[in-house]
Amino acid sequence: MQKQTDRTGFTLIRRVAPISADTHGGRAKCLQRLIRLGLPVPETVALSFEAVHRIAAGELPDMEALLAVFGARPLVSVRPSAQLADWGGPGALLNIGMNDAMHATLAESHGEEAANALYLRFVQSFAVNIARLDPDMFETGNGLGRDALQAALDAYQAETDEYFPQDPAVQLAEVLRSMARAWEGTSARLLRQARGAPADAGLGLVVQQMVLGVGPGESGAGVIQFVSSETGRPQITGRYLGQSQGRDALRASTGAQYLARDGRGGSLEVQQPALFTQLKEYGALCRQRLREEMQIEFTVENGTLHVLDAVRVPRSARAAVEIAVALARDGVISREEAVARIEPRALSELLHPQLDPAGERDVVLRGIGASPGAAVGCIVFTAAAAQACQAREQPCILVRRETTPEDIRGMQAAAGVLTERGGVTSHAAVIARGMGVPCVVGAGDMVLDAKAGTLRVPDGRIFREGDTITIDGTAGQALAGAAPMQEPGPGAAFDSLMEWADGLCDIGIRANADTPAEARVARRFRAQGIGLCRTEHMFFEPERLTVMREIVFTDDPADRAAALERLLPMQRADFVELFSIMQGQPVCIRLFDLPLHEFLPSGRSGLRALAEAMGLPLSDVVRRVETLAEVNPMLGLRGVRLGITVPEIYDMQARAIFEATIEASGAGAPVVPEIMIPLVSAQKEVALVKSRIDAVAAAVRNERGVGFDFRLGVMVETPRAALRAHDIAQHAAFLSFGTNDLTQMTYGLSRDDAGRFMNDYVAQGVFAEDPFHILDAEGVGELLRIGARRGREARPEITLAMCGEHGGNPESIAFCRAAGLDYVSCSPYRVPVARLAAAQLALKQRVS
Amino acid sequence: MQKQTDRTGFTLIRRVAPISADTHGGRAKCLQRLIRLGLPVPETVALSFEAVHRIAAGELPDMEALLAVFGARPLVSVRPSAQLADWGGPGALLNIGMNDAMHATLAESHGEEAANALYLRFVQSFAVNIARLDPDMFETGNGLGRDALQAALDAYQAETDEYFPQDPAVQLAEVLRSMARAWEGTSARLLRQARGAPADAGLGLVVQQMVLGVGPGESGAGVIQFVSSETGRPQITGRYLGQSQGRDALRASTGAQYLARDGRGGSLEVQQPALFTQLKEYGALCRQRLREEMQIEFTVENGTLHVLDAVRVPRSARAAVEIAVALARDGVISREEAVARIEPRALSELLHPQLDPAGERDVVLRGIGASPGAAVGCIVFTAAAAQACQAREQPCILVRRETTPEDIRGMQAAAGVLTERGGVTSHAAVIARGMGVPCVVGAGDMVLDAKAGTLRVPDGRIFREGDTITIDGTAGQALAGAAPMQEPGPGAAFDSLMEWADGLCDIGIRANADTPAEARVARRFRAQGIGLCRTEHMFFEPERLTVMREIVFTDDPADRAAALERLLPMQRADFVELFSIMQGQPVCIRLFDLPLHEFLPSGRSGLRALAEAMGLPLSDVVRRVETLAEVNPMLGLRGVRLGITVPEIYDMQARAIFEATIEASGAGAPVVPEIMIPLVSAQKEVALVKSRIDAVAAAVRNERGVGFDFRLGVMVETPRAALRAHDIAQHAAFLSFGTNDLTQMTYGLSRDDAGRFMNDYVAQGVFAEDPFHILDAEGVGELLRIGARRGREARPEITLAMCGEHGGNPESIAFCRAAGLDYVSCSPYRVPVARLAAAQLALKQRVS
Repeated sequence: MQKQTDRTGFTLIRRVAPISADTHGGRAKCLQRLIRLGLPVPETVALSFEAVHRIAAGELPDMEALLAVFGARPLVSVRPSAQLADWGGPGALLNIGMNDAMHATLAESHGEEAANALYLRFVQSFAVNIARLDPDMFETGNGLGRDALQAALDAYQAETDEYFPQDPAVQLAEVLRSMARAWEGTSARLLRQARGAPADAGLGLVVQQMVLGVGPGESGAGVIQFVSSETGRPQITGRYLGQSQGRDALRASTGAQYLARDGRGGSLEVQQPALFTQLKEYGALCRQRLREEMQIEFTVENGTLHVLDAVRVPRSARAAVEIAVALARDGVISREEAVARIEPRALSELLHPQLDPAGERDVVLRGIGASPGAAVGCIVFTAAAAQACQAREQPCILVRRETTPEDIRGMQAAAGVLTERGGVTSHAAVIARGMGVPCVVGAGDMVLDAKAGTLRVPDGRIFREGDTITIDGTAGQALAGAAPMQEPGPGAAFDSLMEWADGLCDIGIRANADTPAEARVARRFRAQGIGLCRTEHMFFEPERLTVMREIVFTDDPADRAAALERLLPMQRADFVELFSIMQGQPVCIRLFDLPLHEFLPSGRSGLRALAEAMGLPLSDVVRRVETLAEVNPMLGLRGVRLGITVPEIYDMQARAIFEATIEASGAGAPVVPEIMIPLVSAQKEVALVKSRIDAVAAAVRNERGVGFDFRLGVMVETPRAALRAHDIAQHAAFLSFGTNDLTQMTYGLSRDDAGRFMNDYVAQGVFAEDPFHILDAEGVGELLRIGARRGREARPEITLAMCGEHGGNPESIAFCRAAGLDYVSCSPYRVPVARLAAAQLALKQRVS
Repeated sequence: MQKQTDRTGFTLIRRVAPISADTHGGRAKCLQRLIRLGLPVPETVALSFEAVHRIAAGELPDMEALLAVFGARPLVSVRPSAQLADWGGPGALLNIGMNDAMHATLAESHGEEAANALYLRFVQSFAVNIARLDPDMFETGNGLGRDALQAALDAYQAETDEYFPQDPAVQLAEVLRSMARAWEGTSARLLRQARGAPADAGLGLVVQQMVLGVGPGESGAGVIQFVSSETGRPQITGRYLGQSQGRDALRASTGAQYLARDGRGGSLEVQQPALFTQLKEYGALCRQRLREEMQIEFTVENGTLHVLDAVRVPRSARAAVEIAVALARDGVISREEAVARIEPRALSELLHPQLDPAGERDVVLRGIGASPGAAVGCIVFTAAAAQACQAREQPCILVRRETTPEDIRGMQAAAGVLTERGGVTSHAAVIARGMGVPCVVGAGDMVLDAKAGTLRVPDGRIFREGDTITIDGTAGQALAGAAPMQEPGPGAAFDSLMEWADGLCDIGIRANADTPAEARVARRFRAQGIGLCRTEHMFFEPERLTVMREIVFTDDPADRAAALERLLPMQRADFVELFSIMQGQPVCIRLFDLPLHEFLPSGRSGLRALAEAMGLPLSDVVRRVETLAEVNPMLGLRGVRLGITVPEIYDMQARAIFEATIEASGAGAPVVPEIMIPLVSAQKEVALVKSRIDAVAAAVRNERGVGFDFRLGVMVETPRAALRAHDIAQHAAFLSFGTNDLTQMTYGLSRDDAGRFMNDYVAQGVFAEDPFHILDAEGVGELLRIGARRGREARPEITLAMCGEHGGNPESIAFCRAAGLDYVSCSPYRVPVARLAAAQLALKQRVS
């Protein structure tokens, strides 16, 4: 194969040998494909990453040879060509080569007005973007004529003490050098890193002969695409503007034409039906041969159509799914490829709740809807506060003047983001979309006093840290209080994609669901059961809390049993409802895990109220609360330790589960409940609980005269349980790794207390990532691998799972697959993300 | 070799083939050796463990054949023969075979009085110990004549409706059966388990022809030993009583003779010089040939000396050391054997502080000195309270009516034990001696009201839980308050033994020492340096506490640095003193580990006082305290996390260490300090601290113009640090496993909070042992092994150590040796125990 980059440092992309996105960037590669498809692309030269890197270092290609490619009219544009379009790069620069001589020539051929416009445009962009002069000096208002041109040339000379450079080679060299250096600067690097690029990602450049779009005959420029960026459904959209260049038509103020007949105003379809037909043919050709929906940038010079560029249609997550599924349905791509094309995390955008359109809206601020979906939360003004909220599992809205890279962890922790400044490509907007976090930017009417901790809105109301607001990242609004929401309906294409993904998955995906509402979401997103049903919340409802406090206040097992007797029917009803919703799918119920003192009030007034309610002297209540207080509650009397010390609670829960099993199995699909023992550290703990639960099962079977099965397993969340998994597996039908607590114990780090220094730690690179967000594969992960291996060796038929909060991350799923786990369990809204990620992993493995 | 146990189920021990303690028990084996040495031992038969087990199951040996061994006078004793004498067993039973006929015969040969005494004695012991009749019925006061005998026979008949059994075979069968069954009962099992025997330990029995000790000519019985049980030094002690049997001479009330001339009253030496000389010869022979100091039980019948039994001289720990060292010095045993013979834990008895004889003694109670040494502590009335005290590192005295097996863990946790009831062989006494815990039992004058939590003493004073008392387990006294103590001086034999042990040790032993006083103890006990010097206490002295609070209250690094500047000279002086005491031995200093909020007061009044002292509004102080409060302080901002977040503290400590190094090296042996970073969980933490400390070292070298070395290492106390030991070893000259925290994190169990259920857990066998007392080899131990292996592989020259509280246990030392650790560090008083244990392990390995 011919060497692609010749001595001169650039490559003519009409050459036969293929150009790679890895060496020349995606735009160069795409242009070569358009040329090969026979589209009328002007002469184009590609500069490789390496060439651009050399330019940044001062080593230019042979400029004469480069310009010679473009023959008699060396008038060119330069566009960036990064490996992925998303990674950014400098803006396009047009009309390089314009000088006094070219101005004279074009004034002849295309008219004085066109020549003025082209030269002025070039002088302005060169002055501002390349020579970095003050943009105000080159602001021309509506003047585009000879005077404006002269003013710009004069301004350039006044600022630089030099006449505007006339040599096209010098102009081009300056442009290339400036673009190459900007790419290697800090802010470009941070931006592309925020979009997932490696720090050393390369930039290619594309130098293309200008098609003018101005001058005699039908001349102009436009952009067309054949599907909606919002929905992904077929819809010809775009703009065309006569006597214009580049993407001028897209500027709102230009009064550009719609393309298709159904648009407003005179459409291209009506006025230039031949051109329109040709564009539609190009679109269809691209879709078929490039196997993608493309947005085509085109220019008409004197009645002739030229295609300057084509890029993937920008798209919402919803549109991405719609497009991929349609391409697969039409046989353009395979179903596997459709599955592989969707970024799993992007799905969360589809899954975000939306504001109920029928609900009342108390709108207090308007801005730009920068990341779709709606979120309710309490106001916080700092990233640290957002993380603290997350640690308390309290949703929050991060309100900032604007965001910076230091806020990223806070944004991750927040339910939504609201900023005073910024537009759709601001840091906040880009990052929030990447994370699937609803975001409103540019809400400039707000008065933010972060120091006082207040947010004033135009109607005079003042919100403080902790106040609840709602943001609508689709409409770009902030609302007072918690606005009514509706659950998302992701649509048919989503369902198809998920169905195809499920056909590829080789690891199960369950949901963590504690309540009927969560269980219903889990069903809707087709989780393969509930992997973690925490039962603690069931004891906090007011009626039950009173009973729990009686349990806490008695030392007499008989009194305790009587109180638990009253909880039994309530617990049973909880489980009946869950089992009914899940229709026979597995439901893994974790036995009571909380320390008892969590049921007691803490403040003086709460204690007094409790004393009154219990009919006890305050001193008794205080003493009892003090007795139950723990120095390190995370490491105290909870989980199985409570199950062994106060066994009546587990007895009651087991009975409620078994009675509910009989009831739900009678009414619907047979239920085989899974019972999970928390905080185990020794085999004997499991053996003791197992023998009591077996006894309860035998008693219930006997009383009811009905048989049922159940599975008893262990939540592996202490390092010791992981190390002794082979022992513990003797008594366990399943082991489910609770990576949240396991992380706390492996690091010796309480999540509640880590907020005070975790930012420092991640900022200083002490921890590469917050291990509570990204599973620590080296430490916690090793314990998980050890536990999985030992558990499996001791009992090959054992079910292995992960049910920590890490469960829904694509990285964690990759880890769990590799560790041989049977399923992961994650929050219900993460289930589709997890299913898709799992399918992609299986695909990748198939390919490799 | 001839089969030892013949068909009849018993073995004549004069047979040639050797008897083993493993099958017939220690007494049987010893008796055989005495016979082989030519000592005049009466005809003796041994019943093996298996035979006795069969007897318990109802299968008797051939009784006729057994009695036939003893020929014309089938009058025998039965004694227990467990594998180790310590394991207990039934008391000896004498004169089996006495009946009306034998009474008549003996009345002829030995006189009526002797015959009455022998028969009466047998009826009494048989009735009480074998037939289990009410002892009161057989109480005869001083009556020993014909009437008393008849009364006893009548009482037996009245109680059993049968005449006293006359057939010697029946008598012996009953005795054997009763003894065999008692051994297999619960209380005997618990007792021997408390003494370290396995639950299924066997009992052998020894049936020996009676030598009468009563009757015509010189007749009597006695016990002799040639060294003091207290000191182990040569001293002939014992008693002889004419016209007596067994150990009658030892009863205080009998007016028995001393043996040697220097005893009070007429001595055996004076009255029967030939017998005395013969006994001395036997003693010397035993010492030489049995290689042990023996206590000989002898009987004289009509002028002829018989040796009935010989046992190891009972001995205090001090005596044990003295005896072993003397035997080795005399060439009777090797030095290695002397080292091997001492139970390491017993040494702690020698090392206990004693009351200062010159100090004032406010004695409030007198009892029996059951376990030597003195202890000061606060009164607790329950085992649970004792454990709670231990968790707070507060010494306590456990005060109980009497102790039961449930109290064992509380006794372990206590500094001393005081009981109202019991004697030298009571549960409390036996267990306390085994543990080396000072103990006073039988302080019957105290009035204990555990419910009210009070202890009233004869002079009317009332002590409450928490009040400080002192007990003197040597003198058997309890004293009000903290009596003045003197440090123990273990003596020359101890020093020799330790020197021999050190010659065998292949693992280093260092001491955990925070203060100059502890460092001096470490030196005295020849620790090979300080393995853990905690620096936190240095900040709690009143003057420093104020400065620390300033540090806590400022957010300004400059203010903080200024406050630390004031601490610097104090810290430097601390280290200069430690280095001087340790005279160039390594001192491993752990950098500051506590959370800052530990320096703040908690109560309302404490907060107010602090506010006044700081000149701040109370609300500021309260807010700051609340800000610093942590949910799980064990897992919070402490250790290296504080070192990275507030680096000025470590900077100051490093500077103090280096300046002290220069100062101490100038004055004495050159110092190479070791600096240890606590609570590490990631490699980068070490790298960051290392670079700062290196910078401080460079600065100090530069300022002073003096060079010095130091070693920087890591305390491995999170599971992650153990798993990532290979990473961490890159920056660490040593790794020291802190097994206390490592246990907490591996189990997910806070030591502070475990007290509430640990008793239940150990009682139910959930945990075989409290992992905070005995290192959990399976879980925590595996992490330690993993960490040691990975650390060593990554850096072969690395020093590996353990510095948790487990360090001094013989089991832990065995574990650490096997894991390839270079040294263990333990409390200074445990150092000799550890040195001896380590020597024994090395010896064992040499043998195997």
